[in-house]
Amino acid sequence: MSLLVVGSTALDSLKTPHGSVNSILGGSSVYFSLAASFFSPVRLVSVVGEDFPEKYRNLLKEKSIDIEGLIEKPGKTFRWDGRYKGAMNEAETLDVQLNVFGDFLPDVPDSYKDSSFVFLANSSPHTQLHVRSQMPQDAFVLADTMNLWIETEKGALLELFQNVDGVVLNDDEVRQVSGEHNLLRAGRWVCGHGPRCCVIKKAEHGAMFLDRGTEFVLPGYPTDTVYDPTGAGDSFAGGFLGKLAECGRVDKESLSLALAYGSVVASFTIESFGTDRLCEIDREDIEQRLEKYKTSTQLPR
Amino acid sequence: MSLLVVGSTALDSLKTPHGSVNSILGGSSVYFSLAASFFSPVRLVSVVGEDFPEKYRNLLKEKSIDIEGLIEKPGKTFRWDGRYKGAMNEAETLDVQLNVFGDFLPDVPDSYKDSSFVFLANSSPHTQLHVRSQMPQDAFVLADTMNLWIETEKGALLELFQNVDGVVLNDDEVRQVSGEHNLLRAGRWVCGHGPRCCVIKKAEHGAMFLDRGTEFVLPGYPTDTVYDPTGAGDSFAGGFLGKLAECGRVDKESLSLALAYGSVVASFTIESFGTDRLCEIDREDIEQRLEKYKTSTQLPR
Repeated sequence: MSLLVVGSTALDSLKTPHGSVNSILGGSSVYFSLAASFFSPVRLVSVVGEDFPEKYRNLLKEKSIDIEGLIEKPGKTFRWDGRYKGAMNEAETLDVQLNVFGDFLPDVPDSYKDSSFVFLANSSPHTQLHVRSQMPQDAFVLADTMNLWIETEKGALLELFQNVDGVVLNDDEVRQVSGEHNLLRAGRWVCGHGPRCCVIKKAEHGAMFLDRGTEFVLPGYPTDTVYDPTGAGDSFAGGFLGKLAECGRVDKESLSLALAYGSVVASFTIESFGTDRLCEIDREDIEQRLEKYKTSTQLPR
Repeated sequence: MSLLVVGSTALDSLKTPHGSVNSILGGSSVYFSLAASFFSPVRLVSVVGEDFPEKYRNLLKEKSIDIEGLIEKPGKTFRWDGRYKGAMNEAETLDVQLNVFGDFLPDVPDSYKDSSFVFLANSSPHTQLHVRSQMPQDAFVLADTMNLWIETEKGALLELFQNVDGVVLNDDEVRQVSGEHNLLRAGRWVCGHGPRCCVIKKAEHGAMFLDRGTEFVLPGYPTDTVYDPTGAGDSFAGGFLGKLAECGRVDKESLSLALAYGSVVASFTIESFGTDRLCEIDREDIEQRLEKYKTSTQLPR
């Protein structure tokens, strides 16, 4: 089934203990699209500036991502400079220039409005609500957010919660928004404020989802190679929602499978800089790793 | 198969956000024994002082734990006063009195020397080596340790590693002993220094084991009730080694099942003060929770 993502496209400059790169393709909608494209046709709504390299547009097209909704505006593309140190658990932002993304109020092309699954990547909850209002009520809409909006726009964020089907947060964010330290209680708090399900990302420790009444948790794919964590969360969301769209239904079976695919796709992303690894692999690589993941995490029956 | 544990018996005084208790039954060998006793006959080697209440001796006997090896010495029982704050992730030691445990050099009773599985609970690696030397070479010996011995007795600890079949450590300890942050690399480092397997406890995030060439990881049992974390690690080890002893073999299937049982038994321990919850439940409660654990962590097939 068709899948729409609305979010940022960026040019990232990254420093990690393994080296540094300048102005490479990034942004939440890009990682999401690449990850989801293994499972489902993807439609992308985002904005770039006049400096956005044609090669990156071609890269997205080659992955069969529909970029009719990727518009160009006068000015520069959103830029993020970040650094990871030591165990690379947390990104340190060195510089952010929102540029054309700063006042981007996305219009969803009419041809995208029949999308059955929608990902509202991290941006202001006002912007996310603006996009939500353009999509049909029966679409399955999953929203991401970040600590900034929990701190500064909690009212709008809770209004968003009332208007989406799922929320994806990392462990810090779900604790922050709910005021609950225990992740089950925190996730239930979210489900009690609108969405029918809450997905909690726990980085190396995997992920869990809570549907009303159901709780499901998977460990992270055991990996000894973390090269660059940028985009892991959006890749996880892309694998997750891409797989749900492929299944065409949202139930315990599809949600648990989607959680596993999300973890597996994200485990590729972190193996090299930026989107390099995601662009290299194919569905067969994902299926092989899923089998390895099952061998490493599933009990004998 | 028969299972021997050698470690501390203590009288604990605990403060948690849920209340406080004084001089209750505790100690690594006690939590281990109670947890393992659901799966296998347990033989206990430990030491108490003259102040050790008869009711606790009776409690252990009621659980069919063989306490021939629980000796009494003149003086007082090992005492630990600890406190947990907030999310209770870490115990703060308020007071330790080693008392009769301080110079305890355990003699394994002859009747215990045919034990097929042995747990060397946390104590000085010299003491653990002394016990190891009394047991037959073909026993499966699992050793625990703590940050103190990694810091002060690393040489003896590495000698111990060369003489045991498995080591169980928490995430901080395995990172500390190996100098590797990544848990797979850290676990492989341990397996490269003697033991054929390494079990890594990750508290709420579950546990993993590495056998040479195999890596297996399970999430923690999802729980919203953490009342008192004391003894969770030793209960995990008891459930783990108890189940291995019940299986009577150490292979990938038994190790992965044992890891699940370890997590499930530990999830009961933390639900009330001290050993209360472990003493209340029976094997049927464990099996029911294991089924719930599988529903919450296992992918559809």
